[in-house]
Amino acid sequence: MEPTTIVLFGATGDLAKRKIYPALYNLYLEQKLPETFSLIGLGRRDWSDEFFQAQVEKSLNEFSRRQADPEVVKSFVKAFRYSVLNISHKEDYIKLLGLVEQREAELGIPSNRLFYLSVGPEFFEPIAENIQESGLGSTEGWKRLVIEKPFGHDLQSARDLNRKLSESFTEEEIYRIDHYLGKPMVQRLETLHQSNPIMKALWNNRYISNVQITANETVGVEERASYYDHVGAVRDMFQNHMLQLLMMMAIQLPYNSTSEKVGLKKKHIMESIQPLQKQTVGANIIRGQYAEGNIQGKPVNAYTAEPGVAENTMNDTFIAAKLQIDDFFWRGVPFYIRTGKRMKEKSTRIVIEFKEPSGQTNVLKNKGSKPNLLVIEMSPDQSMTLQLNASDPENKGEFKPVHIDLSPDKGDLAEAYENLIRDALLGDPTFFAHWDEVELSWAWVQPILDAFQENLLPLHLYPAGSYGPAESDIMLEEEGHHWWFDEPADQESVVTNSIPLAVNANL
Amino acid sequence: MEPTTIVLFGATGDLAKRKIYPALYNLYLEQKLPETFSLIGLGRRDWSDEFFQAQVEKSLNEFSRRQADPEVVKSFVKAFRYSVLNISHKEDYIKLLGLVEQREAELGIPSNRLFYLSVGPEFFEPIAENIQESGLGSTEGWKRLVIEKPFGHDLQSARDLNRKLSESFTEEEIYRIDHYLGKPMVQRLETLHQSNPIMKALWNNRYISNVQITANETVGVEERASYYDHVGAVRDMFQNHMLQLLMMMAIQLPYNSTSEKVGLKKKHIMESIQPLQKQTVGANIIRGQYAEGNIQGKPVNAYTAEPGVAENTMNDTFIAAKLQIDDFFWRGVPFYIRTGKRMKEKSTRIVIEFKEPSGQTNVLKNKGSKPNLLVIEMSPDQSMTLQLNASDPENKGEFKPVHIDLSPDKGDLAEAYENLIRDALLGDPTFFAHWDEVELSWAWVQPILDAFQENLLPLHLYPAGSYGPAESDIMLEEEGHHWWFDEPADQESVVTNSIPLAVNANL
Repeated sequence: MEPTTIVLFGATGDLAKRKIYPALYNLYLEQKLPETFSLIGLGRRDWSDEFFQAQVEKSLNEFSRRQADPEVVKSFVKAFRYSVLNISHKEDYIKLLGLVEQREAELGIPSNRLFYLSVGPEFFEPIAENIQESGLGSTEGWKRLVIEKPFGHDLQSARDLNRKLSESFTEEEIYRIDHYLGKPMVQRLETLHQSNPIMKALWNNRYISNVQITANETVGVEERASYYDHVGAVRDMFQNHMLQLLMMMAIQLPYNSTSEKVGLKKKHIMESIQPLQKQTVGANIIRGQYAEGNIQGKPVNAYTAEPGVAENTMNDTFIAAKLQIDDFFWRGVPFYIRTGKRMKEKSTRIVIEFKEPSGQTNVLKNKGSKPNLLVIEMSPDQSMTLQLNASDPENKGEFKPVHIDLSPDKGDLAEAYENLIRDALLGDPTFFAHWDEVELSWAWVQPILDAFQENLLPLHLYPAGSYGPAESDIMLEEEGHHWWFDEPADQESVVTNSIPLAVNANL
Repeated sequence: MEPTTIVLFGATGDLAKRKIYPALYNLYLEQKLPETFSLIGLGRRDWSDEFFQAQVEKSLNEFSRRQADPEVVKSFVKAFRYSVLNISHKEDYIKLLGLVEQREAELGIPSNRLFYLSVGPEFFEPIAENIQESGLGSTEGWKRLVIEKPFGHDLQSARDLNRKLSESFTEEEIYRIDHYLGKPMVQRLETLHQSNPIMKALWNNRYISNVQITANETVGVEERASYYDHVGAVRDMFQNHMLQLLMMMAIQLPYNSTSEKVGLKKKHIMESIQPLQKQTVGANIIRGQYAEGNIQGKPVNAYTAEPGVAENTMNDTFIAAKLQIDDFFWRGVPFYIRTGKRMKEKSTRIVIEFKEPSGQTNVLKNKGSKPNLLVIEMSPDQSMTLQLNASDPENKGEFKPVHIDLSPDKGDLAEAYENLIRDALLGDPTFFAHWDEVELSWAWVQPILDAFQENLLPLHLYPAGSYGPAESDIMLEEEGHHWWFDEPADQESVVTNSIPLAVNANL
């Protein structure tokens, strides 16, 4: 790994404290950082290097997955410097360039620079521009730009943002973090089906019945309400995380695959998803918003009662979708996706249901047999499990499902940001969002955003603490499937479900 | 389960003590015996019922996998009676019939009779005949005959035996025990690939590269030498156990399968194995005999030095074979089988090696990737493991094999005889050897027996404590394969291997 300067915008912010410093520290412990590196933290506050280093140490004590050792931390933070920067002050970038070059000279390292923008998306453009204009980007080594979501708020704004960024950085230099792609189980899933002939053999419409991708939260909107009310589940979760999980699940890579091929194959998946038409979005999309309800015995407010939410809001806090990838491998396999707030339980998982031999479903059910499933739990549990049928020793001739742990080595899993920061330092874009797929994702969801905007489909209220509107279940039932692992509704929520939930406002 | 009388010939023998009584007792503990049953033990010795019951209790104390509880044993052996019987004395069968009927009357049970012949094969015919002549077999209920191997010593003798038995019992009434079929891992393997769509999908020549079936022993011939010297590895292990394992591995069953179908499908497998010609047996068969050597550091004698073995014996203590099943599913997949005495380690296992994507073997090897394997260990370990590739966290972009336990529930496995005796009592012939497959097995091995007899192929000596003759390894190497899990030869055995091993006597 080449010696590098990390220029961190937003060094005093929450993401830096909770994720970036702990990730860097754990990489440092594992000797997975460049042997020599320089980190320059930037923020508006007037901090000294020493104060900055102390803040970093504090964040490690609080958030590192491995306990922070004071001696090790001391040597780790030696590389950290701080500089005050006002994002719109061009002279601050000149000063920053001086500091970067001074540190490069002190450490005797080449001018490889990684610019990490841990700031709001409104600052992406001015920062990129100022990096370019100040000469910070005119390095003899490499330069890279790491940015966090959101990449735009619709197709047009995403294109605008990308055009601006591409004036200062090439596509190969831009690393768009979608932290779902850094999750250990997502990366293991990718290895499982790409590097094992028997899984590769099963990874298609001949053997897979349907795929279910769920990201349910129990939290509501909390202090993000006024932001979230302009965003909704489609922009916040679906366009990025959920479609990225779908792509990682569905790509078919050759064995001698490179990261460029990963980008191309993800693009292929997005191009192959049957597009929606604004007027008929409702055939594939269920829009939901939580009403009041109970979560783990505690009453919670309706979304409309959250402070900061607009009166008469039609914002989506839940979406369920049915997608079809129309290519050789996936034609005929429905991909069901859902994500929502204030759901019954927190759970991010992918379930791959394998086909039953045709026509034998009832015979097998009577004998206790269940479909074969591959279940990837990403949060709060992390596991990869295969559900198989075994003989039931108590009942001769009958079966019972057994759960095989496909990922037994879970002792001390790296966090998503460790994987991603390391890849950015190595220059490996495999697990980042490439522009083509980001653009295609926005293009695919744009009819949904338009249909929501124009209220062309119902907004189904669902009680907080449920699995979303009943229409989400019905969508699968109509095709002979069901969401796996939803607990049966208890008496109380059945009663709540019986009030009319569909509200088709403004129509 | 219907009330039954078990008539046990050989009740004072070793198999009864070590296997049959412990199996019955453990079935009794699990309430898997008929609620009312009668057992009548037969032998030449003059035992009382009480002495017999005490002997049974002693055997349980010594051999039961669950500790024998004196109270439970007391109630268990209440059903046991003993009668002296000279196999050739017809009047003894008349007396036996009286006792059986008296007990049936006392217990108020119908005349369902299971005749278990735990005796030498030379007694099968007279016992079956006397059962028939005495009227013991003329029951109003069902009758069944349970016999142990060997079923003949070549094709002709097996046919003769079967013709004789079939004068007294129909094929449906004959339960031929091959205790390998009762082994828990063999039964689990059968469930794994028959009751799981994803395994069924993989179970053919499209995805499987080759199958290896090994049954290696470290023991020599011990006190069985004079018997074994007339039998050899082909008759003792290959014709029965090894071919049965091959059939259980290779059968393709419909989902609504019945035990009749199992018999038909096993017959289909045996009919599909490419037959050998006596003159060219050597192209598919390696014959071996152990020379002196070391096992776990201890020097052991050559086979020819064992007491009881004929001078200049050409008997086989090792056989390796390459078989081709010429049907739609298995065409092109070699099945490698080997079994031997005085091998380096005791191990009975099946290894199923899945195919690598064509032409990529070297690329994958360089990255630490290994073939996907399904490994079924039957003895001394009992396990079912899937070898998959996972990412190597220490070396980015590389892989390492991980071993997935497909059969985690191993706490307290039933012994083979429990499974088989229960099935015989239930009348389920699935896991028994059917006549058709026994006959076809003998027919298939007959050219081998003839070629051995006429010394048409070399007898390779191998040092005790090795994996058999080098020719066994070469047979696989010629097809680009190797025996999985053989430990590399140590210095000492390399030296031993370098002496000329091939002896083609009498030619």
